[in-house]
Amino acid sequence: MGNRIKAIVRYDGTDFAGWQVQPGLRTVQGALEEKLTLIAGGAPIRVIGAGRTDSGVHALGQVFCCDWPSEVPLDELRRRLSQMLVPEIRIESIEPAADDFHATWHAKSKRYAYSICHGREPDPFTERYSWRVMPDVDRARVRELAQRVVGTHDFGGFCSKGVQIDDTERTIHTAEVFDGPVVGPIDSRDHWRIEFEGDGFLYKMVRNMVGTFVDIARGRIPESVIEEILQMPTPYLGFTAPAKGLFLVEVKY
Amino acid sequence: MGNRIKAIVRYDGTDFAGWQVQPGLRTVQGALEEKLTLIAGGAPIRVIGAGRTDSGVHALGQVFCCDWPSEVPLDELRRRLSQMLVPEIRIESIEPAADDFHATWHAKSKRYAYSICHGREPDPFTERYSWRVMPDVDRARVRELAQRVVGTHDFGGFCSKGVQIDDTERTIHTAEVFDGPVVGPIDSRDHWRIEFEGDGFLYKMVRNMVGTFVDIARGRIPESVIEEILQMPTPYLGFTAPAKGLFLVEVKY
Repeated sequence: MGNRIKAIVRYDGTDFAGWQVQPGLRTVQGALEEKLTLIAGGAPIRVIGAGRTDSGVHALGQVFCCDWPSEVPLDELRRRLSQMLVPEIRIESIEPAADDFHATWHAKSKRYAYSICHGREPDPFTERYSWRVMPDVDRARVRELAQRVVGTHDFGGFCSKGVQIDDTERTIHTAEVFDGPVVGPIDSRDHWRIEFEGDGFLYKMVRNMVGTFVDIARGRIPESVIEEILQMPTPYLGFTAPAKGLFLVEVKY
Repeated sequence: MGNRIKAIVRYDGTDFAGWQVQPGLRTVQGALEEKLTLIAGGAPIRVIGAGRTDSGVHALGQVFCCDWPSEVPLDELRRRLSQMLVPEIRIESIEPAADDFHATWHAKSKRYAYSICHGREPDPFTERYSWRVMPDVDRARVRELAQRVVGTHDFGGFCSKGVQIDDTERTIHTAEVFDGPVVGPIDSRDHWRIEFEGDGFLYKMVRNMVGTFVDIARGRIPESVIEEILQMPTPYLGFTAPAKGLFLVEVKY
């Protein structure tokens, strides 16, 4: 036990097997728990993330909570934790939270961004952070397609198999297309991104929606697929956009 | 001999010993010449860059020229070169140039950008591409200081020793401060950059100017130092800003 804390953390997920602790694998949660436990003097610390980002997915604003049993003040904790962590993980902030605060269950909305590059060759500054789609697809078309998923739907059909959940209804508030990459240089002319904000997202749901939009825009599958998937109870069978283009941008409480 | 070509190249300079070929070291020019020579079928190709970026300095738009003795068309050359090069180097374009085109001597102006971060901790997405200055300095002050170097001056005092050149007069057309990093994520609030455009830049001149501006803004040295340096014939003795924040953005002909 101890005092509940809420922290915002940023990471380059390229070389991690995702957020969630897995035996023998390098995970963000694992790295955080290891260092927190060390600073706390050995009492094992367990953290709870707002969302379980997949292997290779990045975060600009992941949130986690845990109980902090130590006398070490939060300012010093933030500083020491940052010094001990690998440079791919950065603690943005640590603050006290209500005793019952839960990073997963209390999240009101999340924002994800997905980065697409249509350069002929990999860009040295964005290759780790975007999906290269060649030739480029019609962004106006993707903007229209993205509007189809806005609202409250059963997103079970956009969920990859492997996770059993009963309630697959979610609400997407906005799904917008912007120019420019999520991470990249000032002159990135050949990048664009899709940003989704919603009350929750199922396993691989963003990457499956992006894969579907691009497949439709490429003319590989008909537009009607979106409505069919929204009515399908079966797991997604289409193309899943690569992890490296996806960022958990922000979690609101 | 062969047909003169002009190419634009982009690179992450982090793990290179700079642009210029040096025996036993990993350089951008060396990597390009090696692959060009292979594609040309063994006839050794020598390339000439617009500027010799230093170890760790990046480029969004470095330009080089060379003579292309092979029958391989330029489109195919670009494609094959990109495939053979490491992902840190990307060929933006290759085009035919006038027989007497010279990437160094014919450059009319160059644009450099220098990226500064004032986050408390290293940012996973910008740590390789910015200098972390803590605490932050007054950007308005730096904006004013940057104006002092605009114009035609003898910049010999901002040149690090090690290079012998007779003519150290250069003209800086603009020196401006902008919000945001040169390379980084969409939500980079704690970054800013200085962009210089001029007809030419001496060895380490941009990094020495940035180091001086920051030292003055920090109150470590008086503002009068800039005028003194501009009148000094001796090599720069102040603080040189780190290579990783510097980008050669564009070369105009």
